[in-house]
Amino acid sequence: MAHVELGNELPGIRGLLVYRPETAGPLMELAQVLLRGDSTLSAGERELIAASVSRQNECEYCAASHGASAAALLPGGGEQVEAALAGPPGDAPVSAKMRALLDIAGLVRVDGRLVSDEAVAAARAEGATDVEIHDTVLIAAAFCMFNRYVDGLATSVPDDPAQYQLSAAHLVAHGYRIPR
Amino acid sequence: MAHVELGNELPGIRGLLVYRPETAGPLMELAQVLLRGDSTLSAGERELIAASVSRQNECEYCAASHGASAAALLPGGGEQVEAALAGPPGDAPVSAKMRALLDIAGLVRVDGRLVSDEAVAAARAEGATDVEIHDTVLIAAAFCMFNRYVDGLATSVPDDPAQYQLSAAHLVAHGYRIPR
Repeated sequence: MAHVELGNELPGIRGLLVYRPETAGPLMELAQVLLRGDSTLSAGERELIAASVSRQNECEYCAASHGASAAALLPGGGEQVEAALAGPPGDAPVSAKMRALLDIAGLVRVDGRLVSDEAVAAARAEGATDVEIHDTVLIAAAFCMFNRYVDGLATSVPDDPAQYQLSAAHLVAHGYRIPR
Repeated sequence: MAHVELGNELPGIRGLLVYRPETAGPLMELAQVLLRGDSTLSAGERELIAASVSRQNECEYCAASHGASAAALLPGGGEQVEAALAGPPGDAPVSAKMRALLDIAGLVRVDGRLVSDEAVAAARAEGATDVEIHDTVLIAAAFCMFNRYVDGLATSVPDDPAQYQLSAAHLVAHGYRIPR
């Protein structure tokens, strides 16, 4: 049971968004800009960064949701995503640029100060732009927030894992922004 | 020097907000709602939660900025804030309810899953409402994002610490929202 009385049975962040619309607006606007806004990183690549950070933070709901979104968006589907999340970033079956960005995201997850000049230079050597590096750091940082929000209030996870695929299909079609 | 070419000399998150206005909008809207929106926690109490998490994350810029804002807003000023940040939450010279909320914030900072039923019950026993507990968790989670964003891109800190007081005075008067 969640730590506060949400007044709804929705799992993960969904119950929190309904409970507190004042904070839901900017949170989902941030997710929309970071994961679906104009970018030279594909939406699938950005969902993979979100899923990777969430998996490493052991946030079951966020890792499964964003893993399902990445699987729906990346050409290699669920198999590619699972292989990318299972091992260290250097072994992920993605581009060399994405491997370097996943490495940066993993450093941010632990502590922003761990992002070294070398890690940034490695991403740049594989063609990462400044904006891509910026956005990777902010996506990783944002999921350190979302993961703590979802777990810190002890929200529930779906009874049926197929719900993650249904949610992902909705998010792929409609994005994160909350209709006003 | 920051990890990306920001094109400005502004310290901390300020340089990042100018660099990437697309993400600055929702980030500052979130800060505004969390730290200045309608709440039964005072703005000073909420700034103290932000400063406490930032201090524990050793994010120099955020700890000093939000410490200065808390000092400008709380009745006990800088002396009260410094005493609250220096030791464990249980020793902070604030209300028993705030001590319990600072304890929850410290748990969220490390890992959301550490927030126990006991920690929540202790806050509730001191009069904390569900919304106050929710907002405390989200403020703590959000500063785990802001701290990593600021440090993960290796932003600069002000040359002159008096700048924190100037910024705090501006934020106390005008809030976080970016004018459109």
